[in-house]
Amino acid sequence: MTQQKYQLILAYDGTHFEGWQSRHTGRGVRHEIEKAVVALFGNCLEIESSSRTDAGVHAIGLSLHVVVPVKTARMSGKQLRTALNAQLPEDIRVMQANAVPSTFHARFDAVAKEYRYHIHQGDVMRPQLRREYWHIAHDLDIVAMQKAARLIVGCHDFRHFTVQRKGELLDSHRTIHDCRVIKKGASITIRIVGDGFLYKMCRRIVGSLVQVGEEKMTASQIEEWLQSPTPQPGGFVAPAHGLTLWSVRYPST
Amino acid sequence: MTQQKYQLILAYDGTHFEGWQSRHTGRGVRHEIEKAVVALFGNCLEIESSSRTDAGVHAIGLSLHVVVPVKTARMSGKQLRTALNAQLPEDIRVMQANAVPSTFHARFDAVAKEYRYHIHQGDVMRPQLRREYWHIAHDLDIVAMQKAARLIVGCHDFRHFTVQRKGELLDSHRTIHDCRVIKKGASITIRIVGDGFLYKMCRRIVGSLVQVGEEKMTASQIEEWLQSPTPQPGGFVAPAHGLTLWSVRYPST
Repeated sequence: MTQQKYQLILAYDGTHFEGWQSRHTGRGVRHEIEKAVVALFGNCLEIESSSRTDAGVHAIGLSLHVVVPVKTARMSGKQLRTALNAQLPEDIRVMQANAVPSTFHARFDAVAKEYRYHIHQGDVMRPQLRREYWHIAHDLDIVAMQKAARLIVGCHDFRHFTVQRKGELLDSHRTIHDCRVIKKGASITIRIVGDGFLYKMCRRIVGSLVQVGEEKMTASQIEEWLQSPTPQPGGFVAPAHGLTLWSVRYPST
Repeated sequence: MTQQKYQLILAYDGTHFEGWQSRHTGRGVRHEIEKAVVALFGNCLEIESSSRTDAGVHAIGLSLHVVVPVKTARMSGKQLRTALNAQLPEDIRVMQANAVPSTFHARFDAVAKEYRYHIHQGDVMRPQLRREYWHIAHDLDIVAMQKAARLIVGCHDFRHFTVQRKGELLDSHRTIHDCRVIKKGASITIRIVGDGFLYKMCRRIVGSLVQVGEEKMTASQIEEWLQSPTPQPGGFVAPAHGLTLWSVRYPST
């Protein structure tokens, strides 16, 4: 029996998912993809994701690979996309599917990931935005947030922006290529591009930037955390539903 | 006992509503507003909406008025907005509230309404859009749709774009001030501004324009329906979830 590896690009509405993995509710993105692959091919020989998003976090460009047994003709990427989307629940869509060489690895080959965090700043927010926007009613000092965001860029020890899980050996250095705060009317987008992210790192960066915007914290506090990190995490964790995994980049793309 | 009239501007996610009125499920927007007003003031003396949206249709600018008893101090518009939003379910928000003269009427005083219809044209649609966009996978001839949209503008007998309900005496003339098809990447917005709309008229206009885009119908068919309307409705009704009541205009605004 031969086999074939495919890369899938997924978009999902994370509202009703426990994240990539499911520990409690049984509603994990991974589980839904595996189920759909098994329904089509009888088996799912391997499944690996670029990222493990938390409960409630969304994606429009999560990358993963699956290895499937091939009995007769190989499916084209487009055929596989259509067939999987026919099996999947409406809150997950396969946006792209491509046959890839067996050497491709969705996690190890990824060179950069982009996350975007959405905030609506204003007295009231229309309910259509409530699943993807963090609603902040009070004013934010955007210029202070933009200055603080520039401090995040570079290679730093980010242990202050994560929770070290017990017994885990953790290299907490990561390189952030871009971190910017963009305001358009009432909508604020925080765009973070990096080579990798620690557990809850994006949400802690956003939480800290918002605290700077609220004048509860200064940019120099962020600078200090980056320069002399202690094992205790600092700052505030922004709510999950504002975060979207935007794209994953590979050497050729 | 004195009383006070307030105008409210509402936004709601229509996904789980039976529309403005509820006949079967008990989930009507009107009912939720009345309940919130009664909780605050003990009574709701009058409630009138600019529009009666259908099941599944959204709003970001529906206008209505309520009359409430005033016992002691009058609430400011801002106080009323905050107080109502604390009572309302998360899929309805009062965006604005203003004290208005007792002569104001949300329906009779309205001079124009704007609706927007959202379409995503492409092989797959990210699930984040599924509650507000009609997903059309095949190509559409946008130029043909734009030409047909221009025919809708003006004062016409729109009886071909509605269903005449039994026993109803119906003046089916309406004036459409603007009807345009705007394409930005995969997103198509159909914007319709008019002095008033018949039952399902917006969705029938959109359905007909899409049929023109699919080359299932020609613009001259629309012209014919407008010039020599017959009691039988024509064309196709676009799904409710793509439609949003965008704004309601009054003489002073």
